[in-house]
Amino acid sequence: MIYQNNLIYIEIHQSEIPWLKIFTKRKIKEFSEASLEEKTEIFRLLDLIEKEMINYFNPEKINIAQFGNYLPHLHWHIMARFKEDSYFPEHMWGEKQREGDLNLPSLDLFIRKLLKKLKI
Amino acid sequence: MIYQNNLIYIEIHQSEIPWLKIFTKRKIKEFSEASLEEKTEIFRLLDLIEKEMINYFNPEKINIAQFGNYLPHLHWHIMARFKEDSYFPEHMWGEKQREGDLNLPSLDLFIRKLLKKLKI
Repeated sequence: MIYQNNLIYIEIHQSEIPWLKIFTKRKIKEFSEASLEEKTEIFRLLDLIEKEMINYFNPEKINIAQFGNYLPHLHWHIMARFKEDSYFPEHMWGEKQREGDLNLPSLDLFIRKLLKKLKI
Repeated sequence: MIYQNNLIYIEIHQSEIPWLKIFTKRKIKEFSEASLEEKTEIFRLLDLIEKEMINYFNPEKINIAQFGNYLPHLHWHIMARFKEDSYFPEHMWGEKQREGDLNLPSLDLFIRKLLKKLKI
């Protein structure tokens, strides 16, 4: 976990690409069960994280998903995708296309920059 | 296309499951490029469609995704998932698990009910 407030927490998903997950603190299953405050916070964070990922990593595309078929605790995935990653243009749960060959700037530094923005 | 307003349009994705796609009218690529008005409209619609899908189809889970790796025109998928569909608990782009055996109520009637809500 890299960040939390009274509504949500954010985790890093270990991957070759920059990939974060936003969970609601309350154990709810569906997005529509979230309060207006929780929904608004999720979309504020998706928007903020996406912008930071684009600025820092210059990805080909940002991917966002909310499934929860295995883990029925509301969480959103946000992923920075690159032409050279192992799955592009498939999504990250798709068929492997190649051996990924990414040479990305430091994820640690990205997280430090993101945390500064999150704490404003 | 089943619905449009000045910001977005909604299409049906042909599938064994209830699956809709929300596109922005403007040809933008990333969610963070959307205006506040477009973002708010997308999330209002995801929330509304999800609730209507849950009430009408009683699915196991709602899945939401925004990829756009093949088609760089911002669009969101919203899917009602069932234990008996061909892919559950995998997402709909995953590995097939079985021959889907769904006996769902009429999609046409669902769309008619949804349109009434959208037009309020």
